[in-house]
Amino acid sequence: MSSNRRITLAQRPVGFVAPECFATDEVDVRTPGPGEVLIKVEWLSIDPTIRGWMARDTYLPAIAIGAEIRSSGLGTVIESNAEAIAVGSTVFGDVGWQQYAVMAGTDVRVIPDGVGPEAALSVFGITGQTAYFGLLEVGRPAEGETVLVSGAAGSTGSLVGQIAKVKGCRVVGLAGTDEKCQWLLNDLGFDHAINYKTENVRAAIATNCPRGVDVFFDNVGGSILEDAIAHLAMRGRVVLCGAISQYNDETASPGPNNLSKLISRRGRMEGFIVMDYFRRTAEAIAQMSEWINDGRLTYATDVVDGLENAPAAFERLFTGANTGKLLVRL
Amino acid sequence: MSSNRRITLAQRPVGFVAPECFATDEVDVRTPGPGEVLIKVEWLSIDPTIRGWMARDTYLPAIAIGAEIRSSGLGTVIESNAEAIAVGSTVFGDVGWQQYAVMAGTDVRVIPDGVGPEAALSVFGITGQTAYFGLLEVGRPAEGETVLVSGAAGSTGSLVGQIAKVKGCRVVGLAGTDEKCQWLLNDLGFDHAINYKTENVRAAIATNCPRGVDVFFDNVGGSILEDAIAHLAMRGRVVLCGAISQYNDETASPGPNNLSKLISRRGRMEGFIVMDYFRRTAEAIAQMSEWINDGRLTYATDVVDGLENAPAAFERLFTGANTGKLLVRL
Repeated sequence: MSSNRRITLAQRPVGFVAPECFATDEVDVRTPGPGEVLIKVEWLSIDPTIRGWMARDTYLPAIAIGAEIRSSGLGTVIESNAEAIAVGSTVFGDVGWQQYAVMAGTDVRVIPDGVGPEAALSVFGITGQTAYFGLLEVGRPAEGETVLVSGAAGSTGSLVGQIAKVKGCRVVGLAGTDEKCQWLLNDLGFDHAINYKTENVRAAIATNCPRGVDVFFDNVGGSILEDAIAHLAMRGRVVLCGAISQYNDETASPGPNNLSKLISRRGRMEGFIVMDYFRRTAEAIAQMSEWINDGRLTYATDVVDGLENAPAAFERLFTGANTGKLLVRL
Repeated sequence: MSSNRRITLAQRPVGFVAPECFATDEVDVRTPGPGEVLIKVEWLSIDPTIRGWMARDTYLPAIAIGAEIRSSGLGTVIESNAEAIAVGSTVFGDVGWQQYAVMAGTDVRVIPDGVGPEAALSVFGITGQTAYFGLLEVGRPAEGETVLVSGAAGSTGSLVGQIAKVKGCRVVGLAGTDEKCQWLLNDLGFDHAINYKTENVRAAIATNCPRGVDVFFDNVGGSILEDAIAHLAMRGRVVLCGAISQYNDETASPGPNNLSKLISRRGRMEGFIVMDYFRRTAEAIAQMSEWINDGRLTYATDVVDGLENAPAAFERLFTGANTGKLLVRL
């Protein structure tokens, strides 16, 4: 137990994240200091935002070269100097891509008994809270409104669409395969699904959102953002959650050429970072638990086994290969 | 009095508005019907939004080919079938580029005694309300925040900056000549002014807004919008009022390439149309009157004489030749 295998940042990505960006090493497990816990990492959450952390300072400082890849995840506490955290607890936190993490007890959250790791890392984790707070607090959909979601078969988008249905909205999703579109329609209750790889997106939005788009929850950016703005309803809202289509771009891509629609339509475009809502985590979990129990909210995970496969799993996020929340099980 | 000279729309503009877009004709003055008033037009308000109305349907239908150019303005009622409007009243409304307008009494507003035509068409007109509601309701500046204004020496921008000063903000303006910049600093009380034609705008914003831009009130769009977003403060707001730099573009220009800043900075970008606030006109006028009386708000007008000079006056808006509100006096 004295050795800790890690996947570290070897070099900052330029364009698509290449295997050379990652290195593997083994270091000694540090002994936890006062207030700290030692965690045996069991699950990692694989998120697009890691691309930003690898490349540069964003809303968090860039990952240092040689440091383990920053990543949320969970594991079991095997040594604890934190009063509130018992050995044997399952905890959530930014454990990183490694076998063992030493963290301040105040930086982790104990997962309650009865909540499985996949739920904890998807619907009850950052993904679920991103969908919940982003849609409800930033998008503020009203009953009967039309909600359009990009990356709809992804971990966040699939929850956004379902929460919008709970709120009585008409929900249209954009996804990249017919199978994903069928999943949205048949399993998640979306009203319409658009395959953005095979359909004319702008025309399909017009057809499927005949009264315009009241809320566009955007995970992808780029041309799809422009297509959605083109059909924004009066007082429509664009929730900027992510722009995965552009994360690997070497140079900044131009923005939508139709921002003046935001003037004539009195539109609002707003970004958010889920961290700002973490003090309300309990509320989101309680509400979504109820919806899960009612059968109104389901979540999907896409599990890859083995720490060594984390880089390959990460790559799948950008090729659109995953459906639901992508996780690595150590 | 039976003949009405008009300037009409001869063809829709492509690119810069050419003289060929306008024609002049003379038509009979229509006899006002029930509820209507006949107005002798005395002043016209020359506004960038007219460019949009000439070209296409916007938030209002396009001006019809052969119709007089739609324009707000004011004049004296010389015949009235509207109970509430006495002959001799000065009224405000969309009178159009013509000598006489017949309008429904419900479509005009009587200007109170003691308010001169220049004040009525600038600070108490659409311009003033655009500044007042756009800044306060959409931008929502707080005391001590930094407000950046583009088109700051224009009719709206010059009022926005002064209102922001009243609210205790640090105010930085962008204008296109050193004379305009001096006017902002010496006469209007702006804290800093940037000449966007001679300075590196992005660097100058960084220097003059060291804690970032809390509110960017944008009248011009294009690269200046991108420069402002680059320095948006946490929870910064971008008020999309206009995009005069792009109104004459033949094809849609790309938007800012840094919209992802709106995510990391939790930024909000929002458009508005002043018409939505017209039910609160009295409030804006009362408040701004007080500030004018206190010496905290001044307004400038740039007056061109002669209906026949309206097209040339309109052109000056786009070359940056005017300072303050551009008006035509018939």
